[in-house]
Amino acid sequence: MTRVLTLDSMNPNVKRVEYAVRGPIVQRAVQIEKELKEGAKKPFTEVIKANIGDAHAMGQKPITFFRQVLALCSYPALLEDSKFPEDAKQRARRILEACGGHSIGAYSASQGIECIRQDVARYIEKRDGGIPSNPDNIYLSTGASDAIVTILKLLVCGEGRDRTGVMISIPQYPLYSAALADLGAVQINYYLDEDNCWSLNITELRRALSAAREHCNPRVLCIINPGNPTGQVQSRQCIEDVIRFAKEEHLFLMADEVYQDNVYAEGCQFHSFKKVLFEMGPEYSNTVEMASFHSTSKCYMGECGFRGGYMEVINLDPEVKAQLIKLVSVRLCPPVPGQALLDLVVNPPQPDEPSYATFMKERTAVLSALAEKARLTEQIFNTVPGITCNPVQGAMYTFPRITLPQKAIDKAKELGLVPDMFYCMRLLDEEGICLVPGSGFGQREGTYHFRMTILPPTEKLKVVLQKIREFQLRFTQEFS
Amino acid sequence: MTRVLTLDSMNPNVKRVEYAVRGPIVQRAVQIEKELKEGAKKPFTEVIKANIGDAHAMGQKPITFFRQVLALCSYPALLEDSKFPEDAKQRARRILEACGGHSIGAYSASQGIECIRQDVARYIEKRDGGIPSNPDNIYLSTGASDAIVTILKLLVCGEGRDRTGVMISIPQYPLYSAALADLGAVQINYYLDEDNCWSLNITELRRALSAAREHCNPRVLCIINPGNPTGQVQSRQCIEDVIRFAKEEHLFLMADEVYQDNVYAEGCQFHSFKKVLFEMGPEYSNTVEMASFHSTSKCYMGECGFRGGYMEVINLDPEVKAQLIKLVSVRLCPPVPGQALLDLVVNPPQPDEPSYATFMKERTAVLSALAEKARLTEQIFNTVPGITCNPVQGAMYTFPRITLPQKAIDKAKELGLVPDMFYCMRLLDEEGICLVPGSGFGQREGTYHFRMTILPPTEKLKVVLQKIREFQLRFTQEFS
Repeated sequence: MTRVLTLDSMNPNVKRVEYAVRGPIVQRAVQIEKELKEGAKKPFTEVIKANIGDAHAMGQKPITFFRQVLALCSYPALLEDSKFPEDAKQRARRILEACGGHSIGAYSASQGIECIRQDVARYIEKRDGGIPSNPDNIYLSTGASDAIVTILKLLVCGEGRDRTGVMISIPQYPLYSAALADLGAVQINYYLDEDNCWSLNITELRRALSAAREHCNPRVLCIINPGNPTGQVQSRQCIEDVIRFAKEEHLFLMADEVYQDNVYAEGCQFHSFKKVLFEMGPEYSNTVEMASFHSTSKCYMGECGFRGGYMEVINLDPEVKAQLIKLVSVRLCPPVPGQALLDLVVNPPQPDEPSYATFMKERTAVLSALAEKARLTEQIFNTVPGITCNPVQGAMYTFPRITLPQKAIDKAKELGLVPDMFYCMRLLDEEGICLVPGSGFGQREGTYHFRMTILPPTEKLKVVLQKIREFQLRFTQEFS
Repeated sequence: MTRVLTLDSMNPNVKRVEYAVRGPIVQRAVQIEKELKEGAKKPFTEVIKANIGDAHAMGQKPITFFRQVLALCSYPALLEDSKFPEDAKQRARRILEACGGHSIGAYSASQGIECIRQDVARYIEKRDGGIPSNPDNIYLSTGASDAIVTILKLLVCGEGRDRTGVMISIPQYPLYSAALADLGAVQINYYLDEDNCWSLNITELRRALSAAREHCNPRVLCIINPGNPTGQVQSRQCIEDVIRFAKEEHLFLMADEVYQDNVYAEGCQFHSFKKVLFEMGPEYSNTVEMASFHSTSKCYMGECGFRGGYMEVINLDPEVKAQLIKLVSVRLCPPVPGQALLDLVVNPPQPDEPSYATFMKERTAVLSALAEKARLTEQIFNTVPGITCNPVQGAMYTFPRITLPQKAIDKAKELGLVPDMFYCMRLLDEEGICLVPGSGFGQREGTYHFRMTILPPTEKLKVVLQKIREFQLRFTQEFS
């Protein structure tokens, strides 16, 4: 029988999609977990998945207030229950009133519930020291990924040399390369400067852009700040330079700012692209086109499963806006529980409200533990021969460089694996630790890395770091 | 200033997308609602939105058991609360145990939580009289729309005469035409037979297919059963014929079965494509490639806001399956609250459980009210001169044909509107009733229709039907 749909007859763009964060190494990890469950003997008793920024899976507890409101929204009979604090009930009532039939089971407007978009706008204004934000420019989304793909879909077109080129950092978060492959866009790599704490260098942007202009039509510049997988936090100066570059070179800016609350290093601070843009004056704030993305999945809440998020668009052509609204309406609406959660993130308990103290305690506990783990990770890795690691200034990952012996590189090639995949597979098999090879994010030719989340609880993280240390020594010895 | 992204420079496929269910008429309805809120005087006091299958927005109450479990999953401290029935707690515990860190805030597997996929498979087996279903063939999704677009994305490729053609019914649900425009596929229209209760005629399929073969590569046949917007329920014989046709013509079958519990007419019964396929014997069940779609948004639960759904794939090439898993992993996972809800839909309270009686009462109340409203709608519309209406055998819509006077058609053309859009706009302005013009779904040249949901509560529906009756008489008189 010949099938209608085969590897040969399917959409070739989909074949080109790669997504390392959930790639073969994770499939192997799931398999090992199954074997352990079935009683298999291994040198370890559990698989520690440090491959993905999935805070709750690593034991982080949800913020009590958020979940109380979500329970109230799900089952409004609880609004009569005296066990729930009044501020939680007030939030739930307000969300329910904004829902069709007062139910989170109704579709919302495709752009998102209006009062939540208003809350998001107020949150952005507060974050950016009063620079105005218009709720009409806010689009709620199914996680940040959804909004990123939607904006790229509007932008990517043309054929041959006119095909839209999109500049992305290397290393990058593989959603970008996957979306570009899927849309058939031209991926334009610009390399972050590992020797300078993964900073973004305008000279490198220029190099990448002029090389790309030979064969495509570059129209978009994507930035991830704080960085994923590289954990750097951009300086205000650098953001200004990037904005100036985008204006000069007529590029649409996409600012992925989902880690905006995850900044740990002393002297580092999160500057939103929007704020810097507006502080640069009307010459910039009236002209540079931009979309900024945020999510409920990261920061201190880590609510990945709810798939909540938003984007703010700046200087988007009104006719394109109408097209954007039409496009998002085809999928009806983002999940309403995720919208409700987002509302709580942008409108958390205030100092005069009963839930404030607990909320602040929980929030601070998560963020200070992350800061401590960021410090610990850098410190321990840098004591290991063959591993060098930049400071984890922000986000929730470290992307250390590993020196692999030539014999290991040869062995990997023999097995048909890229060398850092070989390294990570061995680490998984021998120590039960699941990381993502650097090749999944992109890296300079001849260098090798892995991405590890700093999310495991401190004590477990120490064990993980110790195990990687031992593995690295053993591996180096084996192939020397 | 010249923008990077303008109507001229944007992706032309997105421009071609249309989605009538949330189109200009709904935007006008939202505007009128705002005007009413601000105190504007109108011939009505509220806008009744009968444009979209949004049950809760129309006042339908959620199923108590479902929402209890969702509240427990959201805020597990409630598991200690004696007010919640034991079966709800048991379901919640089981779902939480299947979540990373026992939290619905963790990402799930991209294909969906394994134990939920198992429950879905068992549900399908029971529905189909024991025909086996493999959890590996189940993919949870963000509503049915998400899964439909995903499968189309795998299938659509080629250029020029090799471009993939996709057969869709006319009238159709505009998700299909929108997705095909977005993907740049060739839309192949086959017309349902209005004179025979919107039945599907194989001769018409053949006509459409052979015409399309002149200019594209038809590879997919989409069926919606029970029908949206047309409300018909396909006979077993018709489904057999369609399957035979798909096999003969080497087409991939997409069966949109989201209204599978919404069957009202006497003598009508829902037959799943999967069941009929397997009953036709191995010659068919081992060869015909198919995907079937279901959702939490319709049936008796109407939980649209949660964006839950699944698809089952049959005879999908194993290599393509691997590509499918890779593709869905880029979006990480479907919303976990929607997955949890889906689990309850496929695994509701059983006769020996404490919540069974209430669950059955609530479920039956919704479905019998819908059956009554389906009957009422057909009956009343068919008494109105100029409106003819097929029985609403299933789903939740009626798609009556309206006879428009030539003067009204001329007037519409003068205003640059398609005639049934003109009709619906006038109805909205004069009576505050929001319907979708038939042109948004497609219809035979020279015929006019509208789609109306039967979801308003019975008493309100009677008022709506009466108002449409009066409007139709007035409108006909005005343009005679």
